[in-house]
Amino acid sequence: MPEDIKEKIVYSFKNDYSEGAHLDILNALINTNTSQQNGYGEDCYSEEAVDILKDKINNENIDIHFVAGGTQANLVVISSVLRPYESIIAADTGHISTHETGAIEATGHKISIVESLDGKLLPERIEKLLSEHSSEHMVKPRMVFISNSTELGTVYKKNELEKLSLFCKKNDLILYMDGARLGAALTSDTNDLTLEDISRLVDVFYIGGTKNGALLGEAIVLCNDSLKKNFRYNMKQKGALMAKGRILGIQFSELFRNNLFFSLGKHANFMVSKLGSSIEKLGYDFLNETESNQIFPIFPTEVVEKLTEKYGFYVWQNIDDEMSAVRLVTSWATKEEIVDRFLSDLEKLIEHK
Amino acid sequence: MPEDIKEKIVYSFKNDYSEGAHLDILNALINTNTSQQNGYGEDCYSEEAVDILKDKINNENIDIHFVAGGTQANLVVISSVLRPYESIIAADTGHISTHETGAIEATGHKISIVESLDGKLLPERIEKLLSEHSSEHMVKPRMVFISNSTELGTVYKKNELEKLSLFCKKNDLILYMDGARLGAALTSDTNDLTLEDISRLVDVFYIGGTKNGALLGEAIVLCNDSLKKNFRYNMKQKGALMAKGRILGIQFSELFRNNLFFSLGKHANFMVSKLGSSIEKLGYDFLNETESNQIFPIFPTEVVEKLTEKYGFYVWQNIDDEMSAVRLVTSWATKEEIVDRFLSDLEKLIEHK
Amino acid sequence: MPEDIKEKIVYSFKNDYSEGAHLDILNALINTNTSQQNGYGEDCYSEEAVDILKDKINNENIDIHFVAGGTQANLVVISSVLRPYESIIAADTGHISTHETGAIEATGHKISIVESLDGKLLPERIEKLLSEHSSEHMVKPRMVFISNSTELGTVYKKNELEKLSLFCKKNDLILYMDGARLGAALTSDTNDLTLEDISRLVDVFYIGGTKNGALLGEAIVLCNDSLKKNFRYNMKQKGALMAKGRILGIQFSELFRNNLFFSLGKHANFMVSKLGSSIEKLGYDFLNETESNQIFPIFPTEVVEKLTEKYGFYVWQNIDDEMSAVRLVTSWATKEEIVDRFLSDLEKLIEHK
Amino acid sequence: MPEDIKEKIVYSFKNDYSEGAHLDILNALINTNTSQQNGYGEDCYSEEAVDILKDKINNENIDIHFVAGGTQANLVVISSVLRPYESIIAADTGHISTHETGAIEATGHKISIVESLDGKLLPERIEKLLSEHSSEHMVKPRMVFISNSTELGTVYKKNELEKLSLFCKKNDLILYMDGARLGAALTSDTNDLTLEDISRLVDVFYIGGTKNGALLGEAIVLCNDSLKKNFRYNMKQKGALMAKGRILGIQFSELFRNNLFFSLGKHANFMVSKLGSSIEKLGYDFLNETESNQIFPIFPTEVVEKLTEKYGFYVWQNIDDEMSAVRLVTSWATKEEIVDRFLSDLEKLIEHK
Repeated sequence: MPEDIKEKIVYSFKNDYSEGAHLDILNALINTNTSQQNGYGEDCYSEEAVDILKDKINNENIDIHFVAGGTQANLVVISSVLRPYESIIAADTGHISTHETGAIEATGHKISIVESLDGKLLPERIEKLLSEHSSEHMVKPRMVFISNSTELGTVYKKNELEKLSLFCKKNDLILYMDGARLGAALTSDTNDLTLEDISRLVDVFYIGGTKNGALLGEAIVLCNDSLKKNFRYNMKQKGALMAKGRILGIQFSELFRNNLFFSLGKHANFMVSKLGSSIEKLGYDFLNETESNQIFPIFPTEVVEKLTEKYGFYVWQNIDDEMSAVRLVTSWATKEEIVDRFLSDLEKLIEHK
Repeated sequence: MPEDIKEKIVYSFKNDYSEGAHLDILNALINTNTSQQNGYGEDCYSEEAVDILKDKINNENIDIHFVAGGTQANLVVISSVLRPYESIIAADTGHISTHETGAIEATGHKISIVESLDGKLLPERIEKLLSEHSSEHMVKPRMVFISNSTELGTVYKKNELEKLSLFCKKNDLILYMDGARLGAALTSDTNDLTLEDISRLVDVFYIGGTKNGALLGEAIVLCNDSLKKNFRYNMKQKGALMAKGRILGIQFSELFRNNLFFSLGKHANFMVSKLGSSIEKLGYDFLNETESNQIFPIFPTEVVEKLTEKYGFYVWQNIDDEMSAVRLVTSWATKEEIVDRFLSDLEKLIEHK
Repeated sequence: MPEDIKEKIVYSFKNDYSEGAHLDILNALINTNTSQQNGYGEDCYSEEAVDILKDKINNENIDIHFVAGGTQANLVVISSVLRPYESIIAADTGHISTHETGAIEATGHKISIVESLDGKLLPERIEKLLSEHSSEHMVKPRMVFISNSTELGTVYKKNELEKLSLFCKKNDLILYMDGARLGAALTSDTNDLTLEDISRLVDVFYIGGTKNGALLGEAIVLCNDSLKKNFRYNMKQKGALMAKGRILGIQFSELFRNNLFFSLGKHANFMVSKLGSSIEKLGYDFLNETESNQIFPIFPTEVVEKLTEKYGFYVWQNIDDEMSAVRLVTSWATKEEIVDRFLSDLEKLIEHK
Repeated sequence: MPEDIKEKIVYSFKNDYSEGAHLDILNALINTNTSQQNGYGEDCYSEEAVDILKDKINNENIDIHFVAGGTQANLVVISSVLRPYESIIAADTGHISTHETGAIEATGHKISIVESLDGKLLPERIEKLLSEHSSEHMVKPRMVFISNSTELGTVYKKNELEKLSLFCKKNDLILYMDGARLGAALTSDTNDLTLEDISRLVDVFYIGGTKNGALLGEAIVLCNDSLKKNFRYNMKQKGALMAKGRILGIQFSELFRNNLFFSLGKHANFMVSKLGSSIEKLGYDFLNETESNQIFPIFPTEVVEKLTEKYGFYVWQNIDDEMSAVRLVTSWATKEEIVDRFLSDLEKLIEHK
């Protein structure tokens, strides 16, 4: 997928992990560098990060573990919950369904696919799937995977998550939220969820650092007591227990000590909304509504081609012979002047058409 | 295993990953921070690191991939080489045999155990194992796992590795070297191997960054052509393809651009040899000969108890009612003045006995 | 799924494995009973069966192994072919996709689903799937699973299989045919394939005994040389190497020595076609065209309810408020008088409506 | 391992699965052949077999499932009990440790090896192993595998099993008995265990049919309530749920309706004890004491060579330049006249030496 970002390129809107890390985080790494610490996440920085997070989440009854990346988080969590014959339900658009090279199946489990609505899972569609799994000749769906924000940039509303949570409890399903982009979700204009809400409504979730200003790192939050036992064994077995776990603890302390995590998410969303409202004014449509740091505007193909000379982004879908939808992702690191320049370039392209 | 490093502790000799990273590495992270890069190891820093490493190894016919940690390296490499019914041969002291929570078995493969000699594998012992595996009612041993330095701190000599390599080729076995502590091994006084030698004698190895001055990171080197195809698929599936792969590339560039890797290893070894020769002069024995950055001196138990008040280390083995062997590990970050202080404290303890 | 077959039930059309085995097979077991034989398929009866099958298939360049059941055959074959990150392509209706409790995923592999046409896979649909799998962030589809007859009772025509075979060769895909019901397929009126054709067009297939008159047993036929090495290791590891492998050899010798296999398949098809043509004359439609020993007639729901009092079968699909499609399966053991009785009962039900 | 049993061979003492099945079993298959039954073990014969077995075991609080073979039983049971990071403890001589081609590891679990005493596991040795597994950097031993009779032909005494059972309960370990040769064990002269005892002392065991007169089949008995849930899902997933499960039910009904199982075991033991006592009288030693249907006499190598011209058996161990231990296995099918002939041939060989 990725090719070299060429020198001529002014800026890449391909994803939210193109730069390094927020400077506060790098400085924290430097300031703590010489302190000797225990390995494997039993250092005082990781302990501090856990305390800070419990405070922010406002829930003492949770276990928190840090891992390096999102695929790792997903495979460690899911393989630790399911018995061999159990499956995890995910949207057809879900990250684990398509973009993790069979990471979940490699731990022995089927993913039971449900068609999503704008990237979200609906209880009634899960119910239909459950009703079709009636005997030992089929897997037993046991866990539900959702992403927030979703792979299409939408975010779960509180009442949606409550319904899903209630449905899962009724049906003895474990609800898991992949929060790779939780920073953008929780700071979306349309969001009405808090970390505390999430911790009460799902059984397990993770808070993504990599896509919100950290060098690396995701914080797995185990809310359901029955999932907590021996979790570190699973992490170690899957290669997810970092020797210098301190690096993860330091970063999450920094992200949550003073709400850096939220301000970075807000910034990314603001950049995208600026892009979105201006593009809308220019008369263009979108594949779906904008809720977080991804938008999917539909441009004339020749405009797209011109834009690629100076900006990086993915062509998401060919609408017809003349129009293409592209994906623009902003991040904690996207500067407003770049957004302005992009919009100005876009405007010029249209005038010259 | 790990408990909090108490405040009163002057220094911990427990392992070589207690501190953060060498400052040059942190500075490199800062200097490259704002550059936008492709994700998943396809950034220009990782490409540069590969070029630098190929140059240092003096072998163009190798593939290099960076992963976050050692267990990850082991499970990705081994699961990518073996067919389902094949096993990997390892020493009883081997890291994968005991200290990776069944990470290799979790990918479906048995570890065929051979008794080691001072942490090393001998061809004749492997041969015996092979002769006992004669039919489809047993696994087919297909790969050989060695560590350099070994888990006991010994290092492989060139003629030992040559014999093992020849034996493996004759017996259609893939030879794999875990180089978590390769920095200490290659800068040991008794070492006569080069990276180039290793790249010609083994099929695959990895160069450890985590235990030699990096924040995190190991460089997997695939030497045998037949192992190279689609390797990144395996990495992704096992959660080992980091989104910000740049972090690994930047660090390995820094470690190998000006031989920082070797000077850090040399320093660790020098610190241990200073410890060792002084302890020897004080009249104490060792569990085995010192070759790299670990020593196992045997002290009276009451001396051990006194030492633990100010220094961190593991009690490795109770020799008898009065004597205990301890493990002291030095690193790139161990200061000579700390070593001097430890030795002075030790001397005082003995005088007061 | 299964409930007790009640005493009042005249006959069950639920499946083709309700009875024991053809008497010739039971007699062969008795006649060979006291002969001492090597275990694990290395007995003279299994060797004889292999010879007979090679002769019938008219292909010397094949390896043949016997296993107890179909799920076992599928999981042994597929896990033995694929590397960890590779997937198998199957129809949404495919047996491995839905009815094997995640047996394939339990060996670590994703099933890449393609929408079928009447239970069959089409090259153009596979091509689309391949085009969507472009990088190491997704699994690599590497094998194609088809069933003949399909789960919907249709059979592959020679030109269809040739196209699929050619497509697979071009795209470096391994073609695998699940022949659980190959007996019914090869004796279908619409069939134009021979065992020899199949052995030249697919890389591996299996010939089902369980559903065509044997007590148990499927014969795996490896046609592609690259799949043959160490296959028995895989069988043993998955629990598929039977101690008294003789039982499988004896049965397949009996099934193929004098074409019993084909005459049993022909009988099953004849019984279904008798059912089908009479039901058609009574004015009923079918879900799809009849090609082998399964039909899916659409009856008024009240007729269905009456029929269940005397006959066993599955209600396959509710068409609307008044009509339901049922599945009727015949077998080697279905007696013509039973078919006549069923038809007569059906006719009476309609008259009395 | 196996070579063709040559025509000149009078009899093979290689194992206890060389012949087909006891005639009562074959007759039962014939007598039930035309009855239509539900598939997958939900037939009335399997239900009857379960009832008969519960009665014989004198324990209503057990679940019973039938599978085709021993490796299958082991991998289904073990993978169904353990969480991913848990291991099973087995003797170095244990069948799963060496002779199942990594079947257990293929389900993701390490086997933690303990040195056996005459094939048996001792609590104190397990305790040592447990004490060495102290953290999440190692697997968590969670299950104990024993065989009765053991791979060396010894049998567990009631007090031995009681101690082991108590030890396991204290240490939260699941105790599993592989009863591939339970028939020979329970009818050994030295045995003082009943099926009921076993069902109260272990958490799960299986009763072997294949090596005691059945065509195929092992009965898995789940005693511990916590292991019972959804067990059939595991069976199906691992390919162990036979379509014509009736075959297994019919055989076990036959084996246990009138104690055939025990009389067959008794016969095998009687044949071996006749061999043993006569060989002892001829002045030969044994590798270990005889307790069930295997003996390991030590003969001069030239006697061994002569014997192999007429009898099949495995040379087990070369004692020295002149003497070799061989393994002689008797079975339900071994005729007394063959034993007499062997002894007479042996006597003649000695006279002629």
